[in-house]
Amino acid sequence: MITNDIKQKFIDIVGKENYQDSNEIKLVYSYDATPNFQSLPDAVISPRSTEEVSKVLKLCNEHKIPVVPRGSGTNLSAGTCPINGGIVMIFNNMAKILELDEDNLTITVQPGVITQEINTLVESKGLFYPPDPGSMKISTIGGNIMENSGGLRGLKYGVTRDYVIGMEFVLPNGDIVRTGGKLAKDVAGYDLTRLMVGSEGTLGVITEATLKLIPKPEARKTILAVYENLESAAQTVSNIIANKIIPVTLEFMDQSTIRVVEEFAKVGLPTDAEAVLLIEQDGAPEVVERDIQMIEKICKEMNAVRVDVAKNDEEAAKLTTARRYALSALARLRPTTILEDATVPRSEIAKIVRAINEIAKKYNVPISTFGHAGDGNMHPTCTTDVRDHDEMERVEKAFEEIFDAAIKLGGTITGEHGVGVVKSPYLAWKLGESGVNIMKSIKHAFDPNNIMNPGKMFAKDTRKRVVVQ
Amino acid sequence: MITNDIKQKFIDIVGKENYQDSNEIKLVYSYDATPNFQSLPDAVISPRSTEEVSKVLKLCNEHKIPVVPRGSGTNLSAGTCPINGGIVMIFNNMAKILELDEDNLTITVQPGVITQEINTLVESKGLFYPPDPGSMKISTIGGNIMENSGGLRGLKYGVTRDYVIGMEFVLPNGDIVRTGGKLAKDVAGYDLTRLMVGSEGTLGVITEATLKLIPKPEARKTILAVYENLESAAQTVSNIIANKIIPVTLEFMDQSTIRVVEEFAKVGLPTDAEAVLLIEQDGAPEVVERDIQMIEKICKEMNAVRVDVAKNDEEAAKLTTARRYALSALARLRPTTILEDATVPRSEIAKIVRAINEIAKKYNVPISTFGHAGDGNMHPTCTTDVRDHDEMERVEKAFEEIFDAAIKLGGTITGEHGVGVVKSPYLAWKLGESGVNIMKSIKHAFDPNNIMNPGKMFAKDTRKRVVVQ
Repeated sequence: MITNDIKQKFIDIVGKENYQDSNEIKLVYSYDATPNFQSLPDAVISPRSTEEVSKVLKLCNEHKIPVVPRGSGTNLSAGTCPINGGIVMIFNNMAKILELDEDNLTITVQPGVITQEINTLVESKGLFYPPDPGSMKISTIGGNIMENSGGLRGLKYGVTRDYVIGMEFVLPNGDIVRTGGKLAKDVAGYDLTRLMVGSEGTLGVITEATLKLIPKPEARKTILAVYENLESAAQTVSNIIANKIIPVTLEFMDQSTIRVVEEFAKVGLPTDAEAVLLIEQDGAPEVVERDIQMIEKICKEMNAVRVDVAKNDEEAAKLTTARRYALSALARLRPTTILEDATVPRSEIAKIVRAINEIAKKYNVPISTFGHAGDGNMHPTCTTDVRDHDEMERVEKAFEEIFDAAIKLGGTITGEHGVGVVKSPYLAWKLGESGVNIMKSIKHAFDPNNIMNPGKMFAKDTRKRVVVQ
Repeated sequence: MITNDIKQKFIDIVGKENYQDSNEIKLVYSYDATPNFQSLPDAVISPRSTEEVSKVLKLCNEHKIPVVPRGSGTNLSAGTCPINGGIVMIFNNMAKILELDEDNLTITVQPGVITQEINTLVESKGLFYPPDPGSMKISTIGGNIMENSGGLRGLKYGVTRDYVIGMEFVLPNGDIVRTGGKLAKDVAGYDLTRLMVGSEGTLGVITEATLKLIPKPEARKTILAVYENLESAAQTVSNIIANKIIPVTLEFMDQSTIRVVEEFAKVGLPTDAEAVLLIEQDGAPEVVERDIQMIEKICKEMNAVRVDVAKNDEEAAKLTTARRYALSALARLRPTTILEDATVPRSEIAKIVRAINEIAKKYNVPISTFGHAGDGNMHPTCTTDVRDHDEMERVEKAFEEIFDAAIKLGGTITGEHGVGVVKSPYLAWKLGESGVNIMKSIKHAFDPNNIMNPGKMFAKDTRKRVVVQ
């Protein structure tokens, strides 16, 4: 509970205009991109500096007020829904690019910077920040770091974690910690930098990050391949890798996704195809040319019924349309779209897609699957209606079985969306009780009063999707 | 203290032949590669399985017996010296390569596998495990993971941390935890995998690791460039990167190292040169060719007095000789060689080398510097004699100033050797008290009885190099 006295103290720290608690603002920050989760915060605070973050956290810690740090709220695991009230901390006042260092190939940013802004700036200098989560046009880098966001280029270039090399963050007790720097190598103690990446706002608040950049690939080419059966598409993925080619993008859509996309966008996909692969390679022009020729050959050997190689950027854009439309095409079908991210070893893609189809049939729920075939990160997507409690029960059960199937295939419950509230009931499935226990003890070491994003990751009584609050 | 009763329990777990406590064996495991640190363990234990590791740790935890997990003891920070006695745990019975998975580009290994064995096997299949610490011919992968070992290819390919994607480890309480897997993406909870990497045996014992592999680069070329002055060499490094080329190797030797190497190996280096760069590029043949031509041009523009481009593997081997001999040439000068690894942003190399030279002069100690210029990871190396207490006092003071200079330039106290005992007095210089405190609380969360490699990383009363035990 935020008393008038505490409210005044917050205002003394951040200024009147940066403490908001109108009903309108509380409503705006009561939910994120995750369907069916909503809970009002007590206030929304926009600190202007690391020192203000420190003071706010100290005050919250003293009074045991929950703090939910939030970027643009694009996460899909209810990670930024303030399920226990308290304050939502936003970073519109800490949204500057502090330095682009072309000698050391680093960029130093505040948490509120939009990811796309980073890309635009560094690409204008011939540099490259590879992580490209689907929401990058609106998501913040702080949110990306807290969620360890992935994207379409993970196979070749890795994910957000692989590019964060320095950090400033504030602990719940107000302590300010700086780790790493513009350094390719640093082994001074435990890797706090990577521990913070993907910690979903449960350990502290990031106030600055230094990101590693690489030279921008000179060329890029695109192929779209259509298959009559799933196994041929999966085998194509394996054969490309077996030929020592790591494409930048290796995306997959199943039959159900193909049909919805074709109906929506009329891009000329054969609706009897069981699978489509969208494959892109980047790098030096000669290498891209050679790789694309080899990939085309492999697709044909694997009986692709159609292989389109883009001759230029325009054609490439056309080929990628289908994959880019996947989510929007699905989302228009029914009121609620639940996008999951069960992930398996690359070799198990065909098996997980078959398993998803069987599970969808068993529970009589519509699930279409698309995703990042190259890194086994699948997005089974259910179009449903949260108001239909009976169907939502079945949706929840279906996803439980999908997570279980992924784990049995050597996979995980979440490849890039995070645990948040949505996956917390399943965390022990992946990590066992001993794994969850040691994570809880890390949480306790950082945040003994449990003020940082409480109820996420380990929630004891986590509600599942089926119960509407 | 290991009583007869406890000894019998250890023997019941691992078998008589895997529990050794003769004076000879205790002496053998009383030191590692770090000069001037020695302390006898009470026993040496070789578990044969994860279950045995778990039972041994449980027993040690119950009786508060220190456990020092050890690979081949090649570390340079006294990280595996059993300074508080207890047991040294070795992995000669857990040294199998469990699986090479060519579909998922992973290799799964036990901790006792020699790093070179991994390289040999994967390269025979056209694959590549990039981390190449100097000691890789004898070091174990378990040791590499615990130290987050670097090497010469860090600039382009990263370090050990970047290749560990799955792990099985045992906590001090005996709990067995499995994380990650053959997965490019996994965000199920905190990143325990990367927290364990570089934890120097202070959090638990690794019993299995899954490593990511990449396709082996097809081609490789080598350049040696000689400079009359340090700044030109440093500017060459910057200009190569500014031209969007990331070489696989970008090694540096200063004048003092050049002179010693030349005297030792007679490779024809001009001893009045202030710096030598050894530059290698790998990748697709066309790209390597183009990059090497551009690098040659940059070296000449930066007034290199000599630029040798190897025409074939034999010539390349010849050029790399000088750099490979650096440590051995220095080590023969005097009884004790202290090899450090202060690390700075790439742009600050010239400044740190100048600073090192001034500091060496100030304290009248011989320090030569070579190292990984591309990633700012310098190896100031002092040839001295531990029996000369007066000189050792000055050596310690010189290194203190070097660490301080590195930090002031935005660097760190250790780029790849770890904290161990040697760097523990300086950890707070890099991380501040708040950074060290949160690391200590992580340690406490994992290991409340402080049995795992006690006295390392945070040692309260850490002795410095000068005091002979």
